[in-house]
Amino acid sequence: MSNPILVEVLRGGVVESRHRGAVAVVDADGGAMLALGDVDRPVFPRSAVKVLQALPLLETGAADRFALTDAQLALACASHNGEPDHVASAQAVLARAGLDVTALRCGAHPPIHQPSAAALYRAGAVPTALHNNCSGKHAGFLCLACALEADPRSYVEPDHPVQRAVKATIESISGFALADERRGVDGCSVPTWAVPLKNLALAFARVGSGVGLAPERAKAAARLRAACAAYPWHVAGTGRFCTEVMQLLGARAFVKVGAEGVYCGMFPQAGFGFAVKCDDGGARAAEVVTAVLITRFCALGEAERAALERFVRPTLRNWNGITVGSLRPTEALVAAH
Amino acid sequence: MSNPILVEVLRGGVVESRHRGAVAVVDADGGAMLALGDVDRPVFPRSAVKVLQALPLLETGAADRFALTDAQLALACASHNGEPDHVASAQAVLARAGLDVTALRCGAHPPIHQPSAAALYRAGAVPTALHNNCSGKHAGFLCLACALEADPRSYVEPDHPVQRAVKATIESISGFALADERRGVDGCSVPTWAVPLKNLALAFARVGSGVGLAPERAKAAARLRAACAAYPWHVAGTGRFCTEVMQLLGARAFVKVGAEGVYCGMFPQAGFGFAVKCDDGGARAAEVVTAVLITRFCALGEAERAALERFVRPTLRNWNGITVGSLRPTEALVAAH
Repeated sequence: MSNPILVEVLRGGVVESRHRGAVAVVDADGGAMLALGDVDRPVFPRSAVKVLQALPLLETGAADRFALTDAQLALACASHNGEPDHVASAQAVLARAGLDVTALRCGAHPPIHQPSAAALYRAGAVPTALHNNCSGKHAGFLCLACALEADPRSYVEPDHPVQRAVKATIESISGFALADERRGVDGCSVPTWAVPLKNLALAFARVGSGVGLAPERAKAAARLRAACAAYPWHVAGTGRFCTEVMQLLGARAFVKVGAEGVYCGMFPQAGFGFAVKCDDGGARAAEVVTAVLITRFCALGEAERAALERFVRPTLRNWNGITVGSLRPTEALVAAH
Repeated sequence: MSNPILVEVLRGGVVESRHRGAVAVVDADGGAMLALGDVDRPVFPRSAVKVLQALPLLETGAADRFALTDAQLALACASHNGEPDHVASAQAVLARAGLDVTALRCGAHPPIHQPSAAALYRAGAVPTALHNNCSGKHAGFLCLACALEADPRSYVEPDHPVQRAVKATIESISGFALADERRGVDGCSVPTWAVPLKNLALAFARVGSGVGLAPERAKAAARLRAACAAYPWHVAGTGRFCTEVMQLLGARAFVKVGAEGVYCGMFPQAGFGFAVKCDDGGARAAEVVTAVLITRFCALGEAERAALERFVRPTLRNWNGITVGSLRPTEALVAAH
């Protein structure tokens, strides 16, 4: 019943820590390309489904009404670093809807990007909700609220038209009924509903291929895919896994982190979607699993494969820059069918 | 063969993540009071054994030679927050040996304590090796190097007299031979040797009771115990688990975090030592396990038991301060014999 060990952490040649988890890779018809561990248990996708949460922004015409750019659409799908240009971009989206930082309900936290956090303090400033990694998504929600002529003050509530639109979209695209008894509050205060990995993978296979989607939704999905492929820095930021992978692979892979060890994404060329959950919530392991999926399901050149190696087997360095260990995928993951 | 699930992470009533691990609690004769999971596999104790690493500092007379205070001895056993008084204390220890920050080989990192990090940047300063959570231990190592008349420049190397003294101490007190093929480099660049949890627990039971120790070592152990009980803030810092637990319980419990989900410590009144390793390296789970051990093996008043509840079942809040979930110990942990 327990999920397999997918990733090991080594120090000095000894396995120091181990991460278990589950993985689903499916095609747009729901056919399983890979199923490891329990892919039927509902898990909270958290921020990994921001691209699904952004679909209503396009489908309702809100994105066009506020003339959002592709970089801003990528930011709506992002867990960004809070670097100055992320902050400026979120602020610009709010301005398009006649709003400012005070409209955001995501809460404030320091930029994930350490040099940006240090620079912020050095300038005598304090973190605001614009620095919250979810501010782009929330700015998008606010544009949607305005387009729906709904009260922008309560857009994070489950019964608000914005969250009802998001819920209906995820239900329809994943083919899984979202239950209120499996609803949680996310780090940024919006609802998150638990969905089985195989259904999350299906949703992303559909977003990646357009197969099984109504024309308007397929168009919205294609536009978000293109926006993220063109502006991968806006989806995460400097030094981040999501950004670096998409900078390397362009439109061939969309990968998105979620809190508590989740990754979701798609390989549009292959027509597959995937979803990963590390049992213990460890992001480092979910990244290794995602990197392994990329090497397996994307058509890669030799140089690309070599460039991905640092994500498949990341080196661990200490505060002096000394190599102290590494992460590695297990045989159970690498050899899985 | 797999270790049991010890801690669950809940969000909105749903189990979001799970942590497996192993726990050993033993008396000073090595008698098992509790053994959960694999307690025979060697694991890296990392910073959880700083109190063992500090024993030679006292046994050699170095601590007296440099007239170290009890607060400074507590800092030698610490993974501190890098708050201003931690930094000043580490600096003062170095000064006693005629050294300064340039002698430290632990590397620089920002203070763990976020307000202190922010204040540092706000003042236009940058993190130094004094802010490294291990700077107190390293300052102690340097005092030991000076007392041993060994080259202070290479004190982090495994064959340096300082590290050889540390190794011999841990071997003797844990009753386990430290093997070079199970040696890793720690985050602060000193060696860390893998030791089974049951032997780590034994080492701490001995430090906590003096049983089975030579008189000089028993005296050194008692002094370190008393120093940490008197200055728990120096062992970690504001808001930290180790500090708050020891502030609450005084000399009845010594608890110390190590990286990658390790906790070690002792309940001197009961005469027990303990060691915890969370398989996946998750500190949050190791804290819950440690809190459960305290409620079980320390004699607690009703108010103390109530005060510990927030460590046994910590509440998770998001960036808006909204309660989004909690951690809880599993039945496997609570009911274990």
